[in-house]
Amino acid sequence: MNRVTRPFHQSDLQILVNDLAPLYGDRIHLSQAVREQHGQGEDSYGCMPPDVVIYPFCTEEVAQIVRLCHQYHIPVIPYGTGTSVEGHLLATQGGVCLDLSEMDQIVEINPQDMDCRVQAGVTREELNKALRYDGLFFPIDPGANASIGGMASTRASGTNAVRYGTMREAVLGLTVVTPQGEIIRTGTRARKSAAGYDLTRMYVGAEGTLGVITEVQLRLHPVPEQIRSAVCSFENLEGAVYTVIEAMQAAIPMARIELLNNLQMKACIKYSKLEGFAEAPTLFLEFHGSPVGVQEQIDLFEEIAGSNGGTQFRWADNTEDRNALWTARHNAYFAAQSLKPGAKAITTDVCVPISRLADCILAAEEAAKESDLLCPIVGHVGDGNFHLLIVFNPADCDELEAARKLSAKVVEGALAVGGTCTGEHGIGSGKKEYLRTEHGNAVEIMATLKRALDPNNIMNPGKVLDI
Amino acid sequence: MNRVTRPFHQSDLQILVNDLAPLYGDRIHLSQAVREQHGQGEDSYGCMPPDVVIYPFCTEEVAQIVRLCHQYHIPVIPYGTGTSVEGHLLATQGGVCLDLSEMDQIVEINPQDMDCRVQAGVTREELNKALRYDGLFFPIDPGANASIGGMASTRASGTNAVRYGTMREAVLGLTVVTPQGEIIRTGTRARKSAAGYDLTRMYVGAEGTLGVITEVQLRLHPVPEQIRSAVCSFENLEGAVYTVIEAMQAAIPMARIELLNNLQMKACIKYSKLEGFAEAPTLFLEFHGSPVGVQEQIDLFEEIAGSNGGTQFRWADNTEDRNALWTARHNAYFAAQSLKPGAKAITTDVCVPISRLADCILAAEEAAKESDLLCPIVGHVGDGNFHLLIVFNPADCDELEAARKLSAKVVEGALAVGGTCTGEHGIGSGKKEYLRTEHGNAVEIMATLKRALDPNNIMNPGKVLDI
Repeated sequence: MNRVTRPFHQSDLQILVNDLAPLYGDRIHLSQAVREQHGQGEDSYGCMPPDVVIYPFCTEEVAQIVRLCHQYHIPVIPYGTGTSVEGHLLATQGGVCLDLSEMDQIVEINPQDMDCRVQAGVTREELNKALRYDGLFFPIDPGANASIGGMASTRASGTNAVRYGTMREAVLGLTVVTPQGEIIRTGTRARKSAAGYDLTRMYVGAEGTLGVITEVQLRLHPVPEQIRSAVCSFENLEGAVYTVIEAMQAAIPMARIELLNNLQMKACIKYSKLEGFAEAPTLFLEFHGSPVGVQEQIDLFEEIAGSNGGTQFRWADNTEDRNALWTARHNAYFAAQSLKPGAKAITTDVCVPISRLADCILAAEEAAKESDLLCPIVGHVGDGNFHLLIVFNPADCDELEAARKLSAKVVEGALAVGGTCTGEHGIGSGKKEYLRTEHGNAVEIMATLKRALDPNNIMNPGKVLDI
Repeated sequence: MNRVTRPFHQSDLQILVNDLAPLYGDRIHLSQAVREQHGQGEDSYGCMPPDVVIYPFCTEEVAQIVRLCHQYHIPVIPYGTGTSVEGHLLATQGGVCLDLSEMDQIVEINPQDMDCRVQAGVTREELNKALRYDGLFFPIDPGANASIGGMASTRASGTNAVRYGTMREAVLGLTVVTPQGEIIRTGTRARKSAAGYDLTRMYVGAEGTLGVITEVQLRLHPVPEQIRSAVCSFENLEGAVYTVIEAMQAAIPMARIELLNNLQMKACIKYSKLEGFAEAPTLFLEFHGSPVGVQEQIDLFEEIAGSNGGTQFRWADNTEDRNALWTARHNAYFAAQSLKPGAKAITTDVCVPISRLADCILAAEEAAKESDLLCPIVGHVGDGNFHLLIVFNPADCDELEAARKLSAKVVEGALAVGGTCTGEHGIGSGKKEYLRTEHGNAVEIMATLKRALDPNNIMNPGKVLDI
């Protein structure tokens, strides 16, 4: 971990705090406990606390704070729910952390247009609660109950992306505070537009390095008439993966299709107390549609799965059983960690062309075996995205080193077949070295954008790019 | 129209031509006929010819030419099939037109991954011809048989966008030649990625002002098991629009849902010799899916249409009838022009939230009536996108003036309800004044990008932004 080198004068930070204190009162925090809580995500990169944490209520307050930070060259780190996993929250140069959790207003819901506008701090579960009377839902679910602003910033996806897309497709427009403290709006309420450069997509996935997202316009979807979930075990991993490929080619509109390997199933069975499941490669499935349409999807899927060694379909048709199933899936990361007392996990996040998925997963399993580390695998396989959860003892330097080597090997394998080092977690502090391998000289274009929009490098410095 | 002011010395252009002549031979054109052909699109902005037209074969040749243009500050205008409609091809500062039609190689098709990579000059019809043995198709169809590079550059869409999205969703990655003549690759072959800034989406829709797109990686779709097309007439326009809104809310996965108003139907019946159709507000429809699924969609749609005054469903089930139907739809622009001998048409391209669509179309019809101009309306109404085709006599200055005023009025109406001035045609030379009204100070961010990436303003100057 790099040492903190602050690009600003402590006295300027003091001026900023004094200026804001009368306006923000107890929404400004300088205590070590609050700062430490905000200097880390749910990852193994440790903690680098910011110098001050402020809780703004609205876009105008964010702009006011950022204008002062701009004046004094003080870094700004936007914070949603703290559930990112690539060292996004490390205050590598100190500065001001903007905790947006008080910006939790749902600005509007438009049932006819199936869209809504929310403040950045609204979480996906809060949003779905608000939508339940309109027959609509917001499908993106990256496991954690993350904030919409954070999800937009990391271009998050999750288990529904195979059908409903990622935050790239879900975001129709944004309100952003620029590094100079200006407020801009991107996008419109129209479903599509060819008007000028796609600023919305530029800020989605920029990880807070180009500005602070304060409001998000989202596309919503009608709640399907019928939802059916199931799990299906396979004799071997290839069978499970070929089932996925064939289902996609047959245009079955899968809502969810998730793979767990033997070890991940073992971990989930124990952690989530699943009964009657086999420690075998398993697909977790969900079908959305009309009753007739869902039945047709299921018939076709069962035929494909059967021809690839799939057996033991278990259906979860009531809401309770379905929630238990998907909660177990979402807890895969914690289940993995629980395989070894006191352990942490590094999660890889490669995404590859689906034709190369079986090869890449088998190679990852082989590399894991060689490393002697426990490495369950879970994946959004409809997208070609899988996570090797490398479990290691954080007190053991050799294990950490081996875990990092293994992670690098999995990434190199993915890049070699035209894949990406990160499907949904982002680059953060942890994957910067891979960005250039993946994108070559296109990284210079990214650096040009960053320098042009944030010449003083105050927006979440040290993430995505070192400039 | 502005006069041509060249930012370079004629002698430098001569050096460039002399340098390239031995390498490109008869692929360099200086004749007035070829230059004039390349100085206009299918619009009413007239012609401003480039100084020279070159036909490169590959990305490396494009880079070679652009490096020389960069050296001498000579403008570069990429050209696909010349079917753009917002003055994108006007050589307002002279320069080199790169006609990419010889870059017509399909680089690879990956049936398992349902993606492909093509050179920018491949047209959408050529691509679909190449895909027919793999059971795949490329759904984006902006009427004209445009090139994939041009479609990416204008963020094109068309009749299938309601289900399959626009070029924003279809493009997985690009090869781009930068204004400095560097070759970069954006995106990967993975379906999704959270690795760094979304350069792909930045170049898609940039209208050639940030670089030359030379190759495109595209997402493909399986050919549906069954395709059924139909038309349905309505008593009034509101009934047709409410049918669209209710069908979307009922989550019917419409493949196409297009509206033609009375006057447009009159024009199409005459121009395309359609028999037995009424001069009434009409929806052109297409359903994709399994036989059971398609029937279910149709049953539900007929119920919705019936409750909104929809009658006279006419089905086109064989390929010939279906093609006739959609050819008539795609010829709507020419049908409109044929309403008045010797006429031209200005096409508006607003896109609005679907809840405001009926109001906006009715207001446009009313404004058209007041203007005394013939104005058929056709629209991709599932997206909220409609075109008022304003037919006018190009020799009559008063009519041109009235047509422009009417166009402005329609755009103002769309912006007032949160819509966009262009859903799929782009800004080009013609809609720059609306870009600021629509995006306010966010246009400054667009200008910052343009200045950072193309500091000499050589890439298609005078389009999108005046900087």
